[in-house]
Amino acid sequence: MAEQSLKSLMVHTLKDVYYAENAILKHLPQLSKAAGDKALKEAFDAHAKETGVQIKRLESVFEILGLKPEGVKCHAIEGLAKEADEIAAEFPAGDARDAGLIAAAQAVEHYEIARYGALLAWAQQLGEDDAAGLFAETLAEEEATDELLSELAEDVVNPKAA
Amino acid sequence: MAEQSLKSLMVHTLKDVYYAENAILKHLPQLSKAAGDKALKEAFDAHAKETGVQIKRLESVFEILGLKPEGVKCHAIEGLAKEADEIAAEFPAGDARDAGLIAAAQAVEHYEIARYGALLAWAQQLGEDDAAGLFAETLAEEEATDELLSELAEDVVNPKAA
Repeated sequence: MAEQSLKSLMVHTLKDVYYAENAILKHLPQLSKAAGDKALKEAFDAHAKETGVQIKRLESVFEILGLKPEGVKCHAIEGLAKEADEIAAEFPAGDARDAGLIAAAQAVEHYEIARYGALLAWAQQLGEDDAAGLFAETLAEEEATDELLSELAEDVVNPKAA
Repeated sequence: MAEQSLKSLMVHTLKDVYYAENAILKHLPQLSKAAGDKALKEAFDAHAKETGVQIKRLESVFEILGLKPEGVKCHAIEGLAKEADEIAAEFPAGDARDAGLIAAAQAVEHYEIARYGALLAWAQQLGEDDAAGLFAETLAEEEATDELLSELAEDVVNPKAA
């Protein structure tokens, strides 16, 4: 019974992240359009492609667990996306907007890092090694994206904005 | 003008985080009440105290910038808090709920890590060294809290839940 509960928590969170990744995939073209810096646009476009792969990985986890891919509304990603939209609405196109878009995107990356970190720990605890391997791959990508955005902010966008 | 824009982005985000920290301070007693594990309750209670100090630090930054402390609605924290409430509503008291509460709290920590990371980089870029120092202090605390929650999950709660 106890094991089933941790497993149902894992499945609940899997559905939450599946919803979130699909929302991110839809949102990234808007961020790319709102961005002024060429390298930032490219980073958003590249992350959209990566997100497509991450969604496929989640679908593989559903399959491993004998379930159909299904999302449940993720309130966090709705709020995080709204914050990015606010930046685009309140700041005119330019370097400060770009700096704000990067920060909003990093908040999303950190949300995903937290979620995949938990999913990885639970999958390992439950002996779901194949699922754990898939979560670990995506976790490493999200951490790398966060790192890339930090570099872009500190080396390129923030100095231009200041 | 450009500098003013990065500064106004910093002020906007400062208000967002001020709102978020106050929301977290109100929410933590509910998380503590919903938690079953004694060490987890203690971690939530300790983080509430720490959050009080972090709010004072933000008020010091407002003062440094010659502004009155003021929040702007942070949609992300509203969504993140809702996710924690969902876990408490959907999972009966016990180890799986505790595991879910830890993960929800870590999502909040990661939100703060992203926000303070951006604030720190912008303050440094703008030469606001005193503000940067205060952001760095809180950032280190949020990272330590995230680390503590990971250890609690992996060493205590997840094994009990599985």
